[in-house]
Amino acid sequence: MTTPWEQRYAMRTRQMGSSAIRELLKLTQQPDIISFGGGLPAPELFPVEAFKAACDKVLSTYGSKALQYSTTEGYLPLRQFIVEKMGRYGIKAAPENVLITSGSQQALDLIGKILINPGDLILTEEPTYLGALQAWRAYQAEFTTVPVDDDGLQTDLLEEALCGGPKFMYILPNFQNPGGVTLSVERRQTLIEMADKYGIPIIEDDPYGELRYDCDHKPSLVVLDADKLKDGDPSNNGQGYFRGNVMYLSTFSKTLAPGLRLGWIVAPTNVIQRCVMAKQGMDLHTSSFVQMVAYEVAKDGFLEQHVRKIRDVYHQRRDIMLDAMERYFPPGVRWTRPQGGLFLWATFPEHVDAAYVLEKAVERKVAFVPGPAFYPTEGGHNSCRLNFSNAQPEQIEIGIRRLGEVLTEVLDQTAEPELAMAG
Amino acid sequence: MTTPWEQRYAMRTRQMGSSAIRELLKLTQQPDIISFGGGLPAPELFPVEAFKAACDKVLSTYGSKALQYSTTEGYLPLRQFIVEKMGRYGIKAAPENVLITSGSQQALDLIGKILINPGDLILTEEPTYLGALQAWRAYQAEFTTVPVDDDGLQTDLLEEALCGGPKFMYILPNFQNPGGVTLSVERRQTLIEMADKYGIPIIEDDPYGELRYDCDHKPSLVVLDADKLKDGDPSNNGQGYFRGNVMYLSTFSKTLAPGLRLGWIVAPTNVIQRCVMAKQGMDLHTSSFVQMVAYEVAKDGFLEQHVRKIRDVYHQRRDIMLDAMERYFPPGVRWTRPQGGLFLWATFPEHVDAAYVLEKAVERKVAFVPGPAFYPTEGGHNSCRLNFSNAQPEQIEIGIRRLGEVLTEVLDQTAEPELAMAG
Repeated sequence: MTTPWEQRYAMRTRQMGSSAIRELLKLTQQPDIISFGGGLPAPELFPVEAFKAACDKVLSTYGSKALQYSTTEGYLPLRQFIVEKMGRYGIKAAPENVLITSGSQQALDLIGKILINPGDLILTEEPTYLGALQAWRAYQAEFTTVPVDDDGLQTDLLEEALCGGPKFMYILPNFQNPGGVTLSVERRQTLIEMADKYGIPIIEDDPYGELRYDCDHKPSLVVLDADKLKDGDPSNNGQGYFRGNVMYLSTFSKTLAPGLRLGWIVAPTNVIQRCVMAKQGMDLHTSSFVQMVAYEVAKDGFLEQHVRKIRDVYHQRRDIMLDAMERYFPPGVRWTRPQGGLFLWATFPEHVDAAYVLEKAVERKVAFVPGPAFYPTEGGHNSCRLNFSNAQPEQIEIGIRRLGEVLTEVLDQTAEPELAMAG
Repeated sequence: MTTPWEQRYAMRTRQMGSSAIRELLKLTQQPDIISFGGGLPAPELFPVEAFKAACDKVLSTYGSKALQYSTTEGYLPLRQFIVEKMGRYGIKAAPENVLITSGSQQALDLIGKILINPGDLILTEEPTYLGALQAWRAYQAEFTTVPVDDDGLQTDLLEEALCGGPKFMYILPNFQNPGGVTLSVERRQTLIEMADKYGIPIIEDDPYGELRYDCDHKPSLVVLDADKLKDGDPSNNGQGYFRGNVMYLSTFSKTLAPGLRLGWIVAPTNVIQRCVMAKQGMDLHTSSFVQMVAYEVAKDGFLEQHVRKIRDVYHQRRDIMLDAMERYFPPGVRWTRPQGGLFLWATFPEHVDAAYVLEKAVERKVAFVPGPAFYPTEGGHNSCRLNFSNAQPEQIEIGIRRLGEVLTEVLDQTAEPELAMAG
């Protein structure tokens, strides 16, 4: 059936495409499947009791205020908490530099709304976060890409892409989704220099920065940019401690709970004011109740301690996955060794199609996301993203064993003829 | 200071404009002002204890599930609850016809995203809800308008506006924001016929429909449209009981609590699927925790009973405001007498500027929203919107008395010279 909505108008959803991750979530809800597909945190780590106490406290203390309309900018104590938390990583900001969003995903949509005109070019890493692609395709963005290696975006290939005149660069510097790789400090410096040289700003998306397992914290792009501020720099005039080349995004989804839908944007005050105007038209404000509850849970050192617990658990799961891959994956398959985050990236021999591997894997009740979903234009056919945060250790072992069996079979079947004859 | 974001790019926020209502919210937070400006429900009616019990129940029963990522469509029991609730008003739908949104405002943004291309014409009532204007200006929509009178949109003036080829009509049939007027059943029928004749569908926005004080429920546009379905109509092919000329929006903001940010869209299944794809890129999904808590509070007849309580309180406040206006407002001021909702609309003599009246009113610690905010193009300079749901009865009495004094003074000062000379 076509409804009048479709008969009469070209709906703009053509550009959007359904999210492979969302579709996979449906798959992962089958109880007997071991899914490395989603980006889900381990639910057994969610501090349910702390949330229970916080809900009670918020409603007892603030009553109806927690249920009423509130300001678009976000709950002030929560913004102050975020300022303090980011301060520990060298990001100097005031509450006026922070906007609370309904998850990081809304921040990406909002950036599209205020910056992207149809046909605009956006520079992303390759592969990159598919939620960003989905958000920006809705604004009819085009993409230019720079591949990542084990040290993140290959900055030696950056200038050529910048010459195409992208509107901004979209960078996930820490434990990148989907690659699991981390941008080296040298390359971070280069990026900031390039942003200056070409006049092209950066969206720094940092959902995983705190989830590091065996490395030190590396300075954020927004900090490296601010470091270039000179005393009396006219650009730092009442807009906070920013030079303004970088807009920084983060979220409580990976450290507290994704079901809250709470993220934030950090930027110069006047950029935040533009974002506030856009957000007013998008959802007026993020749930006041949820913001107050999250603040009540996170404050007084709870979140810091909780993040340490998450690190321990995910560190172990990453090790279990890497160890199982060593044992079960056939020769010819390569993978990244992330120092943090939730994901790693595996690459099969060139002639192996990840979509075909997935089909076979699902028959054995194990799932992942094939690479092409993370490529803005094309590529990644022989690669995939594996999540190690959600499944239990014993499930990771079983799932990787099954996946190894599938890969061994597929590689045998599809071995190139010369090799088969030689064997 | 201009940051690189501004120096280098024309930010698209030009078209957005800050929301007058949002700005006024700041004003209403001054404790000594009596504000008829916002659209805030009475906070003392929020069922705080029920929310406390619901949070505890949800976290005890579902634990981490309430804090994890969930599906974009929304929490199934909540969608089933909405289906049942709407069924009592003759709207036949299945859960597949319902999408949960982060407040009605997100539904408006989403509609802009899937339907509006730059320069598209949208037909609205005049005056109309300014949040819709704000959402759609961000997509560079243009507006054509049809004025309302005491029976809602003047359908005898509709055909001329439809000939301009608007993409859709945006209608608030019940206790319209800001006019407080209700569309007559006859005009509802005409609207549906016109939608057919010109092939132009309708967005029916119904946040206040249940808050009726002294009138019967009038059938929704979506129901009148479905009534035209014939048995075996090929357009009703697996998409629900809809002909598809109307997309229906509503919200829990006025009946349960606005701080939750919970609204919904009702439409044919395939339209909902498009909306789901768009929402994925906007915020992945609305907070799972909030949806589960709202369901827990609303179910088992609680919401129905609660709505009766709200009706009693707002009914009384409306009467107090109307009665005070009779006593305190000078001759020459007219106003609507809403049968429900939160707002009424006052019109001053042609030569009186509402912005000037507001300036004087704020000196006396009373506030309202001047008319032009609700006019998509221009007009309304001598009118204003008054909210009667938020202030206490005695505050309404005092506020209207002060406003009456201000109006009397302004009318005296600005009386037209002829009249002044005659006096």
